[in-house]
Amino acid sequence: MGIVPAELSSTELSAIRGAFLDFVGDPFFQSVAESVRYLPDGLLVLKDGTIADFGPYDQLQAKYGKVKTTHYPDKLILPGFIDIHIHYPQTEMIASYGAQLMEWLETYTFPTEAKFKDTVYARHIAEFFLDELLRNGTTTALVLPTTFPQSVEVLFEEAQRRNMRLIAGQVLMSRNAPEDLLTPAQTAYSQMREQIQKWHGKGRSLYAITPRFAVTCTEEELQLAGSLAAEFPEVYVHTHLAENKKEVALTAELFPDRSDYLNVYEHYGLVRDRAVFAHCIQLDESAFERLSQAGATIAFCPTSNLFLGSGLFPLHQAKHTEHPIKVGLATDVGGGTSFSQLQTMAAAYQVMQLQGKSLSPFQAFYLATLGAAQSLSLEDKLGNFAIAKEADFIVLDAQATPLMQLRNPVPVPQSIEAIATTLFAIMLLGDDRAITATYVGGALTTKL
Amino acid sequence: MGIVPAELSSTELSAIRGAFLDFVGDPFFQSVAESVRYLPDGLLVLKDGTIADFGPYDQLQAKYGKVKTTHYPDKLILPGFIDIHIHYPQTEMIASYGAQLMEWLETYTFPTEAKFKDTVYARHIAEFFLDELLRNGTTTALVLPTTFPQSVEVLFEEAQRRNMRLIAGQVLMSRNAPEDLLTPAQTAYSQMREQIQKWHGKGRSLYAITPRFAVTCTEEELQLAGSLAAEFPEVYVHTHLAENKKEVALTAELFPDRSDYLNVYEHYGLVRDRAVFAHCIQLDESAFERLSQAGATIAFCPTSNLFLGSGLFPLHQAKHTEHPIKVGLATDVGGGTSFSQLQTMAAAYQVMQLQGKSLSPFQAFYLATLGAAQSLSLEDKLGNFAIAKEADFIVLDAQATPLMQLRNPVPVPQSIEAIATTLFAIMLLGDDRAITATYVGGALTTKL
Repeated sequence: MGIVPAELSSTELSAIRGAFLDFVGDPFFQSVAESVRYLPDGLLVLKDGTIADFGPYDQLQAKYGKVKTTHYPDKLILPGFIDIHIHYPQTEMIASYGAQLMEWLETYTFPTEAKFKDTVYARHIAEFFLDELLRNGTTTALVLPTTFPQSVEVLFEEAQRRNMRLIAGQVLMSRNAPEDLLTPAQTAYSQMREQIQKWHGKGRSLYAITPRFAVTCTEEELQLAGSLAAEFPEVYVHTHLAENKKEVALTAELFPDRSDYLNVYEHYGLVRDRAVFAHCIQLDESAFERLSQAGATIAFCPTSNLFLGSGLFPLHQAKHTEHPIKVGLATDVGGGTSFSQLQTMAAAYQVMQLQGKSLSPFQAFYLATLGAAQSLSLEDKLGNFAIAKEADFIVLDAQATPLMQLRNPVPVPQSIEAIATTLFAIMLLGDDRAITATYVGGALTTKL
Repeated sequence: MGIVPAELSSTELSAIRGAFLDFVGDPFFQSVAESVRYLPDGLLVLKDGTIADFGPYDQLQAKYGKVKTTHYPDKLILPGFIDIHIHYPQTEMIASYGAQLMEWLETYTFPTEAKFKDTVYARHIAEFFLDELLRNGTTTALVLPTTFPQSVEVLFEEAQRRNMRLIAGQVLMSRNAPEDLLTPAQTAYSQMREQIQKWHGKGRSLYAITPRFAVTCTEEELQLAGSLAAEFPEVYVHTHLAENKKEVALTAELFPDRSDYLNVYEHYGLVRDRAVFAHCIQLDESAFERLSQAGATIAFCPTSNLFLGSGLFPLHQAKHTEHPIKVGLATDVGGGTSFSQLQTMAAAYQVMQLQGKSLSPFQAFYLATLGAAQSLSLEDKLGNFAIAKEADFIVLDAQATPLMQLRNPVPVPQSIEAIATTLFAIMLLGDDRAITATYVGGALTTKL
């Protein structure tokens, strides 16, 4: 189990020295010079879990010479990864064999989620899940629990023990799933109201209204979710959209009056800023334009889309200059097959290559750091090393395996061109071993 | 550097006890009961680097009670992996960014291969390469060196030092590549003849006539390769076929008299038993039927096909009941992104899912063990635990990471159904860490 970093964060100044890379713009729309910031020898000064100062070591050395400093020579320091779509109850059923979405839900997912009625069990998995995120360098996530309120409670409790900024909310299902997983719409509505009051904005916790997807929700339920979303505009909306063809067809049958799948959510006021839609593979141009206009977000889940055979997400369409959509990278465990955002970037690159497009290493890392923070409207708190932001960051080892040592003979190159090559090799060859250290709120978490 | 296992193999009997899984039939065409053999508690008896006996521990215990036995409780023992298509000079340029096949060759591959003129450098990479194969549980490979004879020599020398069964041969290029990588056809022909005499059948080495691909070979060169292939039917042919659309179009321009890409190789007598064609993505039904009739082999390279965006190999078409083709799994490093056949199986599963098909864990492991041995006509020597075969095998850890421990709470299940689930999780979540030990010719190699 991870330590509780909150107890270790300090009102005293402390500092980290090393090579820092972060983003100050969007590398999909801006040049490398405008969007990437690389300090081969930098100093990050921490106080109260936030960033007190940041800059080149030689400029800050005099001012902070007496501050206790941890030096990571030969390592790269980046903002902590943000995973904008992941199911914690599916941790133990990751890599389940042989089905596409709808059969996979019935065969593996629903029986597993039924176990989360048991609070002790739910806490055990929540602890493992959060520690596994930290081992993989992910410091913030937007998480689906289950339909059981206790599965929400233990997740927030354990996230707070670890001082992690985490977003979650009770999953809504009232039809088309096994009886023991369903909650009547009115009951769920009351439970959500209580949870919002209890958790949203408490410490680093934030709340998300989470209809699983249109298929498992009644009209009444979506209406109640929409009214909550209107009452609490700063609360998130989190759901799935157009992942799989069979799912799209079923949604059309269930909601014959809606013009398309997205329009189901639009109709109930669920498409807005701070609304996150996972997948969005089977959408037409019009839906992309409407998502852009609404200020909504897409969670791009490439390992899941490959594993379940859902298809290839057209990232280039979402990153269209005329109607850009906010996109964050997501593992979607357990449909996704890895907790590592590095491995997820590698899969994102494959998805783009299969469409005859590309994805630069800067674009890939942006999607899991500043881009993900922006996609959650959290760029005032997370995503890069700007002063006053929360101090969640990771220490990357470009030489974590013998092959990575051969591929990256210089672990910390000086030029921006060379660092692009190194980052690409890390995202293709790296995994949890490449995460030397994870800091949450300025405090080092222990590696399991 | 790995040890030299030959020095440790023994004329004395020794034995390995544990849970053994191998194949005795083809799980694409036969039932699990007919094709999979699983001994939850078995004994493998070794002598002179080969398998002297094999069976359930309780049946063999009395006979071999005094033999020195290594016991691996809680581990799975499988035949060593066989990788039927990999480029050793590309080891250090694995994960090179942003191009599809033809540009990738020009930008990264050819400049890297030019360095192999230097014997010292070539030996350094050959050593790393072979040790990396062993770390990943691969005990036999069909390897492309470069056009330099010295790159062939050092590879065979280092493979022999490790007692590995390895197939390789000088790469043929006489046009459409940088000048310093080209060898005149007649010169290469003489060099190949010498190499066949020197290496084919020496120890565990075997030779492959290796025209890089039609694009870099003149008609004269293919003709000479074909005449060698006829003179030495037991020598392999190894090349690329229909990987990428641009490559297919270029081949059609260069060989206007041939009916399709495969017909270029057919015309020169290069399509036969022991001829291995990597990729075969852009082929029509007729080419698949002709490959089947000729008894030729396809190397399925899923991580490479995804990374370079080449496309999705239709394995189901190759495993057609009416015209089955021999298929082996291959990493294709450095177009492929991993030395691990486990990660390659995971990618193969994704490729099939994206085509609306599936790939069972037994089928996946078969493609890297007995299926790969059959695809190289080496099933009399390698691929399973049949008595008298060469004793190349690996010890797998289903609990190699915290996530794998959670996913596989029982590391060695008793039933065949449960072992399928465990193998699937290993191939999806495993990497070099899941390879506890690699034995070559009956001797344990050291883990780096």
